[in-house]
Amino acid sequence: MKAISYQEQPVEEYVIREKPYYVPVKDEVEIFTAAFENNLPVNLKGPTGCGKTRFMEYMAYKLERPLITIACHEDLTASDLIGRFLIKNESTQWNDGPLTKAVKNGAICYLDEFVEARMDTRVVIHPLTDDRRVMPIDKLGIILHAPPEFMLTISYNPGYQSVLKDLKQSTRQRFVAIDFDYPPADTEYEIVAHESGIDMEDARTLVDIGQKIRNFKQHGLEEGVSTRLLIYAGMLIRSGIDQKEACRAAMIKPITDDYELQKSIDEIITAIVE
Amino acid sequence: MKAISYQEQPVEEYVIREKPYYVPVKDEVEIFTAAFENNLPVNLKGPTGCGKTRFMEYMAYKLERPLITIACHEDLTASDLIGRFLIKNESTQWNDGPLTKAVKNGAICYLDEFVEARMDTRVVIHPLTDDRRVMPIDKLGIILHAPPEFMLTISYNPGYQSVLKDLKQSTRQRFVAIDFDYPPADTEYEIVAHESGIDMEDARTLVDIGQKIRNFKQHGLEEGVSTRLLIYAGMLIRSGIDQKEACRAAMIKPITDDYELQKSIDEIITAIVE
Amino acid sequence: MKAISYQEQPVEEYVIREKPYYVPVKDEVEIFTAAFENNLPVNLKGPTGCGKTRFMEYMAYKLERPLITIACHEDLTASDLIGRFLIKNESTQWNDGPLTKAVKNGAICYLDEFVEARMDTRVVIHPLTDDRRVMPIDKLGIILHAPPEFMLTISYNPGYQSVLKDLKQSTRQRFVAIDFDYPPADTEYEIVAHESGIDMEDARTLVDIGQKIRNFKQHGLEEGVSTRLLIYAGMLIRSGIDQKEACRAAMIKPITDDYELQKSIDEIITAIVE
Amino acid sequence: MKAISYQEQPVEEYVIREKPYYVPVKDEVEIFTAAFENNLPVNLKGPTGCGKTRFMEYMAYKLERPLITIACHEDLTASDLIGRFLIKNESTQWNDGPLTKAVKNGAICYLDEFVEARMDTRVVIHPLTDDRRVMPIDKLGIILHAPPEFMLTISYNPGYQSVLKDLKQSTRQRFVAIDFDYPPADTEYEIVAHESGIDMEDARTLVDIGQKIRNFKQHGLEEGVSTRLLIYAGMLIRSGIDQKEACRAAMIKPITDDYELQKSIDEIITAIVE
Amino acid sequence: MKAISYQEQPVEEYVIREKPYYVPVKDEVEIFTAAFENNLPVNLKGPTGCGKTRFMEYMAYKLERPLITIACHEDLTASDLIGRFLIKNESTQWNDGPLTKAVKNGAICYLDEFVEARMDTRVVIHPLTDDRRVMPIDKLGIILHAPPEFMLTISYNPGYQSVLKDLKQSTRQRFVAIDFDYPPADTEYEIVAHESGIDMEDARTLVDIGQKIRNFKQHGLEEGVSTRLLIYAGMLIRSGIDQKEACRAAMIKPITDDYELQKSIDEIITAIVE
Amino acid sequence: MKAISYQEQPVEEYVIREKPYYVPVKDEVEIFTAAFENNLPVNLKGPTGCGKTRFMEYMAYKLERPLITIACHEDLTASDLIGRFLIKNESTQWNDGPLTKAVKNGAICYLDEFVEARMDTRVVIHPLTDDRRVMPIDKLGIILHAPPEFMLTISYNPGYQSVLKDLKQSTRQRFVAIDFDYPPADTEYEIVAHESGIDMEDARTLVDIGQKIRNFKQHGLEEGVSTRLLIYAGMLIRSGIDQKEACRAAMIKPITDDYELQKSIDEIITAIVE
Repeated sequence: MKAISYQEQPVEEYVIREKPYYVPVKDEVEIFTAAFENNLPVNLKGPTGCGKTRFMEYMAYKLERPLITIACHEDLTASDLIGRFLIKNESTQWNDGPLTKAVKNGAICYLDEFVEARMDTRVVIHPLTDDRRVMPIDKLGIILHAPPEFMLTISYNPGYQSVLKDLKQSTRQRFVAIDFDYPPADTEYEIVAHESGIDMEDARTLVDIGQKIRNFKQHGLEEGVSTRLLIYAGMLIRSGIDQKEACRAAMIKPITDDYELQKSIDEIITAIVE
Repeated sequence: MKAISYQEQPVEEYVIREKPYYVPVKDEVEIFTAAFENNLPVNLKGPTGCGKTRFMEYMAYKLERPLITIACHEDLTASDLIGRFLIKNESTQWNDGPLTKAVKNGAICYLDEFVEARMDTRVVIHPLTDDRRVMPIDKLGIILHAPPEFMLTISYNPGYQSVLKDLKQSTRQRFVAIDFDYPPADTEYEIVAHESGIDMEDARTLVDIGQKIRNFKQHGLEEGVSTRLLIYAGMLIRSGIDQKEACRAAMIKPITDDYELQKSIDEIITAIVE
Repeated sequence: MKAISYQEQPVEEYVIREKPYYVPVKDEVEIFTAAFENNLPVNLKGPTGCGKTRFMEYMAYKLERPLITIACHEDLTASDLIGRFLIKNESTQWNDGPLTKAVKNGAICYLDEFVEARMDTRVVIHPLTDDRRVMPIDKLGIILHAPPEFMLTISYNPGYQSVLKDLKQSTRQRFVAIDFDYPPADTEYEIVAHESGIDMEDARTLVDIGQKIRNFKQHGLEEGVSTRLLIYAGMLIRSGIDQKEACRAAMIKPITDDYELQKSIDEIITAIVE
Repeated sequence: MKAISYQEQPVEEYVIREKPYYVPVKDEVEIFTAAFENNLPVNLKGPTGCGKTRFMEYMAYKLERPLITIACHEDLTASDLIGRFLIKNESTQWNDGPLTKAVKNGAICYLDEFVEARMDTRVVIHPLTDDRRVMPIDKLGIILHAPPEFMLTISYNPGYQSVLKDLKQSTRQRFVAIDFDYPPADTEYEIVAHESGIDMEDARTLVDIGQKIRNFKQHGLEEGVSTRLLIYAGMLIRSGIDQKEACRAAMIKPITDDYELQKSIDEIITAIVE
Repeated sequence: MKAISYQEQPVEEYVIREKPYYVPVKDEVEIFTAAFENNLPVNLKGPTGCGKTRFMEYMAYKLERPLITIACHEDLTASDLIGRFLIKNESTQWNDGPLTKAVKNGAICYLDEFVEARMDTRVVIHPLTDDRRVMPIDKLGIILHAPPEFMLTISYNPGYQSVLKDLKQSTRQRFVAIDFDYPPADTEYEIVAHESGIDMEDARTLVDIGQKIRNFKQHGLEEGVSTRLLIYAGMLIRSGIDQKEACRAAMIKPITDDYELQKSIDEIITAIVE
Repeated sequence: MKAISYQEQPVEEYVIREKPYYVPVKDEVEIFTAAFENNLPVNLKGPTGCGKTRFMEYMAYKLERPLITIACHEDLTASDLIGRFLIKNESTQWNDGPLTKAVKNGAICYLDEFVEARMDTRVVIHPLTDDRRVMPIDKLGIILHAPPEFMLTISYNPGYQSVLKDLKQSTRQRFVAIDFDYPPADTEYEIVAHESGIDMEDARTLVDIGQKIRNFKQHGLEEGVSTRLLIYAGMLIRSGIDQKEACRAAMIKPITDDYELQKSIDEIITAIVE
């Protein structure tokens, strides 16, 4: 069986070559490193856009492992992860899925929003997350043994799981869990300024507004404004958009359709900006 | 692997060669341009037929990018966007989907009514909408890096989202959002006259009726009459259909099946037309 | 790519060569003609069996366009409309769907009971029903531009739409709408006599009964008896079936299973026939 | 395209060569014949096992047409009816479905329990049941015109339709309808004796019991005992099974699992048999 | 069309060569035999593990017919029963399903837990269970006529049918029905001793316990303990497991997860065993 | 039919070569052994992470059989278990599924969380779990007879079965059942120390905390903390993570998202650790 060249994808594409910008908040780097050393899978718990993806890039860089990220969704099948046969030029060739690629290459596999995946996908990781650390590929009739460098991580947003979309205990209890949240104000100033290219003063204003908006979670806001959106606002400002308009386009309209909430938040912005 | 010619579709087909007729209402052109410059994805929020599609054509013309539009629906799969293998003359060939085509050619990709798409489709855009700006094509085993000219935009009608069809925060917070609404009366006169070929007086009558109908939203009308339907009415009038009949065929019967509502709106038309 | 002959279906099969029998009721012919001239899509609204299909045949004949009719249903896919690849004699050939055929040949495409179609099918028509008038065929990587002669029409029965099967405003507002109803008595006499071959006296009796039955809609009848069923009754009578039995077989039993309703309608028939 | 021999199925297999035993009850033979002469589709309405299938065999024999019967169910697809392509020896061949076969050969097509079919299947018959009498086969790109001998019939049991499984008015109003019920006692004696081979006295006893059981419909019995089950009981008796045991095995246990109902019916049997 | 050898499966594999151990309870052997002689299908009604499968093996041995058993479930398709085409070495070959094999070879076909099958599967048997006794194989375009030796049987557990999983009357009324229940104590002693290899004294103890457990059905036990589980307990005892532990492992823990119920049953066992 | 080499997977891969660390709690080893000797299938009932998988490895080692484990889920099909045809180099080859492999090689097959499997999968095991001990492979037209060494085992967590995901009595009553629970404190100290490499004192502390957390099940905790998570905590401690932080990351955050519960458990940890 000769594999076609574009399948032998150089896993180097997944290597992160430049140190990602990441400001640690608590002891998340140490716990993650200890889990990596003990071959334990890790579950990153936290809200949208608070830096989980960036943290993964940072840890992959630090631990010198390729990072293979998979955005989970309800139509992601086990075959999408493991691989499948494709018919090529009259013969059938096996095509590694991203999880198989990660196991073979000792990469860190990051299953983003794992709870969105279908049941078959969620169960696929079971033999990889107990002390067997194997992945049977039934279609090939083989069992892959994960090298020590392979690590499995998932992310999970406890803020919006329903009864239907919950992690089963038999899955949850396979992971060391690390909590994530929006960074503290001082850290967030720094991040927003660094990422959007505005000065610290402007960054401070945006973070102040962001924190006030996050308090609206008690008043019906589904989820607070993410650090990512603060950075968007900064970028629009840097491109010459009026500060208030930039906040509206990047921090109010993206997070809610509720007219009353929008108005209340708008008043906050006006009060701070002027 | 020789690709069959009709697959190498010249992306020029998607280039808009004539300046589309568009009358800006607020600062939507500036915000969109700033988002484009900063590689930020944009979400156009607003009701049916108020000009979002025309705005996209206008911006694509202005920014000199091809525009690839995809009408989303609940059966649109990730493969429909990304591409798939097809068996041709005994060998298998890869066929780029419209999103892949947009990424490769630095086009603007417009996912119309994005919330109608299935979950797997919605998640496909995640790696394209954070700072990675990549699109992994698992079936080819490659990762496409989007060029700076590539831009992703979606549209979203907050007026009729149900609980089941809502944008998840983890998706929403990836987009700068711009609000759209029916144009102000002066602008709408101009548009209706220009597009349907009737004179300003007739256009004014149609816009007056349209605005009165939109007030019925408080009285049970699901959505106001769109600018597009005003133009339809104008066209029928220009073709010799009686003004009242044209309004009925283009502005009442299309928007509601409710007999009482139809009658009330009919009275308004009669009052204005006569 | 050589197409196999039976795929090159001569669109002449869809040309209506004899003038269909149709008696206009209001200004439906004029509005339809104006819509055709302005390239506007049309929505025929009305109950079962009141002549919408015949009207379409009549207009196609009058406008000298082929008529391609598609009965929509919840399993009709976008590919059923657009086309698909088929494997033939070791190679793959494209097979135009009926909508593609209509666009290519400048035919009138009639999507009967459009609201029964799946969402992907309904959305397929969007780019054909705004001013772009195009149909992207992603699988071929081409964009078809509809010629001016192409026209898209749908039918819609407002009488029995549920919440689940409703036309979205973003679809509705793309169509000029024409209301249809059972023809007035004088016209219906004529139609029944002409179509079933019975004399005017018998036709009058059938139409009288039909109109009385239609009044039962207030008493729990789901939908009135259609002109088509009056014609069926006429045909049975012409074949020698007793008038009362013919009415039972063609006008009572087809429309309801409710024993009480059947009995009440039977009494009406007995009163009129005897 | 050479068709493989077993596909060219001789439709003679569907010809009924011996006169089926059928005892007419009302004017069903005349109405069916008139419908056949006028090319009208027919709907047989009635409970389980009261002779609808036998009636169809009788009419097919009398009208000298082949009879193609299709048992409908919720997984029956349009392709199951129309046909599909199959890959055979490196080329693709079309395989007529039973409905296509019926249309081509001018057979009578009987769709048993039509309401159980999926929507796409139900809609397939629309163009065959109005005055066009055509069947488009999109996959072949052809339109079949039904010959005058072709007739479409369906059966429908009004006794157990739910809201979900109801015939739409736009389908119902395409059919002349004939009511069926259990035959009157005199006819049923004759049928049971003839079909099971027992003498008239025993047949009378079984029919008496059957009619008493049917009265239990007011007391919670879902549906009465069919003529077919009376015949089963007769057969068991003829094979030497005790009369009471035969009635239990063929007339009580098949129709209900309710212990109380079983006991009440058993008492009736005991009273009549002893 | 040359069939590949392993498809020409010798139906002898399904012949039962040794007389199965079966102790008749009522007249079930006579009724089944009479049904076989009259070509009537049979429905075995009764709870789990009371000997229906063994009865079928016994009757197949007695009537000298092969027995083809199919465990029904909600994913069993009509094709699973009838057969399908498979691509083998560049050509397509037909592969008989188990029902087809049974019809061709005049076997007894036993559809275990028939009500679990999907609708299409349930309807497949209709033409085999009325006086036509045919099976159309649409994909081959042929109609199989069942030989007189072919017999169709189903099993059905009235104890746990829900509204969704009920046999339709149009299916039920096609079958002669035979009731099954746990055997009377004397018979059950004998069976347990014979099958597990323990002595009659021990068997009596197990049957006594079993009957007491069955009385718990009024106290919330879903279903009584089957004869099969009594045999399991006997086997564990013969292998040296303590009598009480054997009863727990084979007769309590398998039938309920309810702690209170388990404790009550445990007390019964203790009382009897000690 | 020549099988391709990688399909002839040496079942030795499934042989467990080193004695797994397992501390028996009750008589589970004896009952399992007796069931194995009598060819009885076994059902392991118990909560997540209490050692069922390890027990299976231990028994497979002890009984000298290969162990083939399959994690069940709602998308696992019967074909996934039994096998399927794959097209390879122009011909079709059969690929044994894991269950077929287990039957052929006399292995122990362990269906983990069996109740998660789809119905068709659950029914597949029926003929293997009664005295026939056969597995029909319809697609090959063969019946596999299981050798005496083959054993079928399932696991089942009674703690979280819903009405929808319950074992049917007709399945349950095919298995001898063994109860599992968290090991007694003395055993658990030993296990945690042995598996994580910490000393007995630290292990005692973790087990004490673990047992206190398990008492929270009455206060809304879905399931107690598993022995596996105690081991995780031990590993983090051994890697230098602070004891309290290790408990949080491995014993609190993985098992609940409830903030109040987390706080209460945190207090317990603080009280014990300090």
